[in-house]
Amino acid sequence: MLATALFLMLFAASPEAEIRAVLDRQVTDWNRGDIDAFMTGYEDAPTTTFVGKSVTRGYRAVLENYKKRYPDAASRGVLRFSEIDVRMLGPEAALVTGRFDLDRKEPATGRFTLVFRKTNRGWKIIHDHTS
Amino acid sequence: MLATALFLMLFAASPEAEIRAVLDRQVTDWNRGDIDAFMTGYEDAPTTTFVGKSVTRGYRAVLENYKKRYPDAASRGVLRFSEIDVRMLGPEAALVTGRFDLDRKEPATGRFTLVFRKTNRGWKIIHDHTS
Repeated sequence: MLATALFLMLFAASPEAEIRAVLDRQVTDWNRGDIDAFMTGYEDAPTTTFVGKSVTRGYRAVLENYKKRYPDAASRGVLRFSEIDVRMLGPEAALVTGRFDLDRKEPATGRFTLVFRKTNRGWKIIHDHTS
Repeated sequence: MLATALFLMLFAASPEAEIRAVLDRQVTDWNRGDIDAFMTGYEDAPTTTFVGKSVTRGYRAVLENYKKRYPDAASRGVLRFSEIDVRMLGPEAALVTGRFDLDRKEPATGRFTLVFRKTNRGWKIIHDHTS
């Protein structure tokens, strides 16, 4: 029992660490041009939402928007997240805020608010508000 | 026991109804020019955050920004919320998205993402991303 507790303390990733790992993987996937892989940071559900200039509902629609808006390496640039703050909202939800930078010919930057939910496929973004 | 359950079913406000009531009260308070009252929809805590053009941290700072930005009836206009969607994130947290319109000489409109937490003073906004 003590050994189990000790093992969990030492080796089990905290929810915050798991969430940060999702974001790190998104950055890696984006920067190797794999938007389908990047997108798996979101929950694959019709309820997934993205608020940008307008509201997009559903995983497929969000994915298509990304592909439309970032069709090539020049538009995708190099993505970086910073100022990441993770606030747990209970055992199965989290609020994440941060900043993104796209390093490219015309650099882009902005702020995002993400809501993560713990699904049976791990922590996933269920809502993204980026501006 | 059954009577208690029946009473709760019939008369206890659901979390979603309580959250919508907070938003309704905010609109009423705004439209009678009482920004201090409007602000009580937010949690009075240094952790309360507002993401607009920049990030503002803390209840007092958010309140001061509102007062600076909306000093008079002409700038405040008439506020209306619409397309409100409430998603529960567990028993003590909720994700709310919607649209605001400020009816005034130069009308303003935008989208917001709010995260509510159930506090011992009722449901309060702990994070607001408006764009």
